[in-house]
Formats: sequence, structure tokens, C-alpha cells
Amino acid sequence: MARPSPLSRDEFALFRSLQTRWSDNDIYGHMNNVVHYALFDTAINGWLVEQGFLDPVKSEIVGLVVETGCSYFSEMGFPDRVTAGIRIGHIGSSSVRYEIALFCNDEETAAAQGHFVHVYVVKETRQPSPIPKPMRAALEDFLR
Amino acid sequence: MARPSPLSRDEFALFRSLQTRWSDNDIYGHMNNVVHYALFDTAINGWLVEQGFLDPVKSEIVGLVVETGCSYFSEMGFPDRVTAGIRIGHIGSSSVRYEIALFCNDEETAAAQGHFVHVYVVKETRQPSPIPKPMRAALEDFLR
Amino acid sequence: MARPSPLSRDEFALFRSLQTRWSDNDIYGHMNNVVHYALFDTAINGWLVEQGFLDPVKSEIVGLVVETGCSYFSEMGFPDRVTAGIRIGHIGSSSVRYEIALFCNDEETAAAQGHFVHVYVVKETRQPSPIPKPMRAALEDFLR
Amino acid sequence: MARPSPLSRDEFALFRSLQTRWSDNDIYGHMNNVVHYALFDTAINGWLVEQGFLDPVKSEIVGLVVETGCSYFSEMGFPDRVTAGIRIGHIGSSSVRYEIALFCNDEETAAAQGHFVHVYVVKETRQPSPIPKPMRAALEDFLR
Repeated sequence: MARPSPLSRDEFALFRSLQTRWSDNDIYGHMNNVVHYALFDTAINGWLVEQGFLDPVKSEIVGLVVETGCSYFSEMGFPDRVTAGIRIGHIGSSSVRYEIALFCNDEETAAAQGHFVHVYVVKETRQPSPIPKPMRAALEDFLR
Repeated sequence: MARPSPLSRDEFALFRSLQTRWSDNDIYGHMNNVVHYALFDTAINGWLVEQGFLDPVKSEIVGLVVETGCSYFSEMGFPDRVTAGIRIGHIGSSSVRYEIALFCNDEETAAAQGHFVHVYVVKETRQPSPIPKPMRAALEDFLR
Repeated sequence: MARPSPLSRDEFALFRSLQTRWSDNDIYGHMNNVVHYALFDTAINGWLVEQGFLDPVKSEIVGLVVETGCSYFSEMGFPDRVTAGIRIGHIGSSSVRYEIALFCNDEETAAAQGHFVHVYVVKETRQPSPIPKPMRAALEDFLR
Repeated sequence: MARPSPLSRDEFALFRSLQTRWSDNDIYGHMNNVVHYALFDTAINGWLVEQGFLDPVKSEIVGLVVETGCSYFSEMGFPDRVTAGIRIGHIGSSSVRYEIALFCNDEETAAAQGHFVHVYVVKETRQPSPIPKPMRAALEDFLR
């Protein structure tokens, strides 16, 4: 399978600033591969909360993750600053594919990039739910 | 892109028992999607250490992760027991593709499955290194 | 303030086996000081769940942590096996002080030991709640 | 043992801004008690790195944690912003007691506060080392 090329900042219109933590660095002295996914979650859910589309405690419709992936191009680690670029790869009736690139400090090309797919469900029943219209409209602004 | 089907235990010959932790459960009451990758790392590096192929502090050749991915089929969470099935998808000259399925308690089909690709490098220089022969031989036993 | 001495296994009657994870080791090659608390949570809540005193999703009365502390005597790290010894330091009307020692592999004296204080509250209102009688009786067996 | 009172911002002169993450919230919908310690580490080591007193990969003298503790007064959680106030409780020949309060969003009193004690050691040998003079001088500015 072909390895993707790192994306650059100009392929994104939505950005989130993220902090690294001491515990992100593993025994090899760089950010452990697992942490990138914690940053993806934080970037996207942070944006959804700010936009009023998600209240983690009260929302009746929540996004469950059904697929994730990440390619790692160069090392990052505490205390680097990270900027996440977010775009939408696909919007289905109840699912969204988010694509995220992580930029280290002032770098123009991504140190890592990946995606995750949210399926929106009714929290109580875990049954798929249509994406609410205002959220769908907001997501469409960032469709690539 | 087609969604993969969950694998069953009989597609694996190498298994590792894994514990869940209280902090694995997120606000939705199940294992956060990030934790699956921490379990992948633990299962594979635990096996490599036991086999004598990896000493996290002293090894001069270490595996850096260049690609990971996971599909999530059903929910798990603390205090579930998890069993990881491991097989080898591909062995290159300096890279290995590990495929891992996570089985919840006594379930026969995977709650989640994924892969990650290690590139073996000289720890000091981060230059790719051939996979040592005894390790290659051991991995070949689990090539699917 | 005097530094405590490491406790030995014979000062405990309740034990839990715990796994370490790859990501527990920090850049200094040993278990990061934060992880010990994740192990405390896992040991104690795991026991409470097994005894039927806690269902993390359904329980209406849950233990919130109001105080924690830990002293570190010697280094542990992945892939060490850890055994937690648990005893009860104090039982109040709605609070419990758990004391936990972490033993590395087959060591007789603790690599680290600490405590945490749970206040039992009604999950919805966060108002303190008396400890249910069967749970109190079970805890009293391990009062030091 | 008497429970401490929450400190206020005016008892600190050194502050660090910290982000919360999605995975910080546990099943009870608030920041898990373990995360506070990850924030302590990040605040203090971040300051040490910025001041030039610590390079996590290259420093030959590093701070190992021998004691930690935290009192929790009120709930925080993602996506709250956290500000850490840092002061120095004690400086020994090779040890430092850091005292940290965590303030939630714009609150004036601490949601949680704690301490940790670093013993400075030679990384290779783990033998205690005197605190380097420039670092000692900088720490003294924040002695309470």
C-alpha cells in the first residue's frame, strides 16, 4: 500500500492549538504513537463543543468512533507545540470522516496525519442518528 | 472504502492477555478509542521483550511506528478482560506489519482490530536497520 | 516531614495483580509517577466491581476521590508485573481511606505506596451518601 | 488529618496555562484524579525546560519523583482551561518540593492542589546530585 505524503497547512482551513504533556514522551524520547489519537479526539471534540454541537455530559446524540488511522512522518514530543489542521473527508447520513494533520511548532508540513470516522448515535440506545442539520451545515464548510 | 469484518480467534496463533484499567473508560462509559492502541503496543512489545528481541532501555535497534489503524466493532471497557491475537501481515527488510485483534472476555469474534507498522532503526541515528535474523525467523512463524 | 518506610506484603491481606503497559514508561525508562495512581484506581475499583459494590455505569452511589498521595521507593516499569496490596486505613460515615502498596514482580517490599480517600456520593447530585452496609462490612475485614 | 483549604491565585507568582483533553474525563464526566498529576508534571517540567534547566533527552542531571500528593476540592474537566500556580515549598541540597494549585477557567480559588518532591540525580547512575546553582537561584525566587 502506498504511503501517503505529508499534507501542508494550506490544505486546511480549520486549526486548533494543542499542548503536549510530559507523559506524552515514551522511552524513546518522543511522543508515543498513541498520543496522536488523543490529540485528534481533543481537537475535533473541542471544536464541536465550542460550536455548540456537543455537550459531553448532556448531549443525547454523540459520536462513537468506528475507525481510526494515522501515518507518522517525523518525531514530535513534549514540549513541542502542536497545531491540528482539520478537514472533512466525507459526510454520510449519520457518519463523518474527519481528516486531521498535526503540525509541530512552526513546521509547514505535517509530522503526522490521520483520520477518524464518527458514527452519530443516540447515547442511550446506541442506535445511529442522522447528523443534526446545523452541525451538517457547519461540517460542509470544511469538506475537502 | 469497505469496512472490514471482525476476525475470529481461529485466525490467530499468538495470543496475549491484557488488562483494562479504570481510566480506559471515557465519559461514554466504554474504552476510549485511543486505548486500543496502547493495548496493541503492550501486546506486541511485551511479546518482543519476552522473546528476547527487545530491551526497551538497552536495545540498539528499536521499532518506530510509522503507521497505525484500527476498526471498532463493539464496545469494551473496564473491567473486561481483553485477549490480543497477533499475526504478521508483512515482513520487509526493515519493517514489519503487525495485525492485532482484540477479543473481549470470552467472545470469539474481535471487538476491534487493527495494525501497526514498525520500522526498525538504530536508536541513536534513527537510520533503518535490517531486522535481526532470529527475530525475522520468529516473526515468520506468525505470517498469515 | 519523615519519609515513610516501604511496607511488606505481610502487612496486607487483599491483593490484586496488575499489568504494566508500554506507555507507562517515560523518557527516563521507568514507570512515570502518574501511572501509580492509575494502578491504585484499577486495583480498588476492580475489587469493588468484583464484590458487587460498584457498577461504573449503573451505580447511583459512586466514590469520588478527594485526596491522594504516593511515596516512591524504587523504580518499576514495563514489562514488570505489579501486585497491589490493599488495606483500609479509615472508614467514616461516607468516606473510606484506602492504603495501597505496589510490589514489583516477586519483591517482598513495596516499590511505592500511597493512599486515596473516596467520598461516596449520589452520582446525580454529588451529595455525600452513607456507605452501604454490605460494603462497609466487607471493608472492615481489611481495616488495619 | 485536617483537610487543607483551597489556595487562591494571589498566593502564587508563577503560572502556567494548561489544556485539558477529551480523554481526561472519566466515566463520571469529570477529570480523573490521575490527570492532575500529569498536569503537575507538565507545568513544572515545562517551566524547567523553558528556563534551560532541563533537556529531557540530553540532561545528565534529572529530577526523579519520590513523593506526590493532591487534594481535590471541585470538579474540572474537558474542555475547561486550567492554570497551574507553582511555588517552591522547600529546597534541600538535592531535592525540591514543588507546590502546585490548579485553577479552573477564571476561578480565583484552586479546584485542586498538591505537591511533588523531585530528587535530582545523575541520570546514568541514579545517584543524588546537588541542584545546579543557577537552577537553585531561580527556584528561590518562588520560595514561599
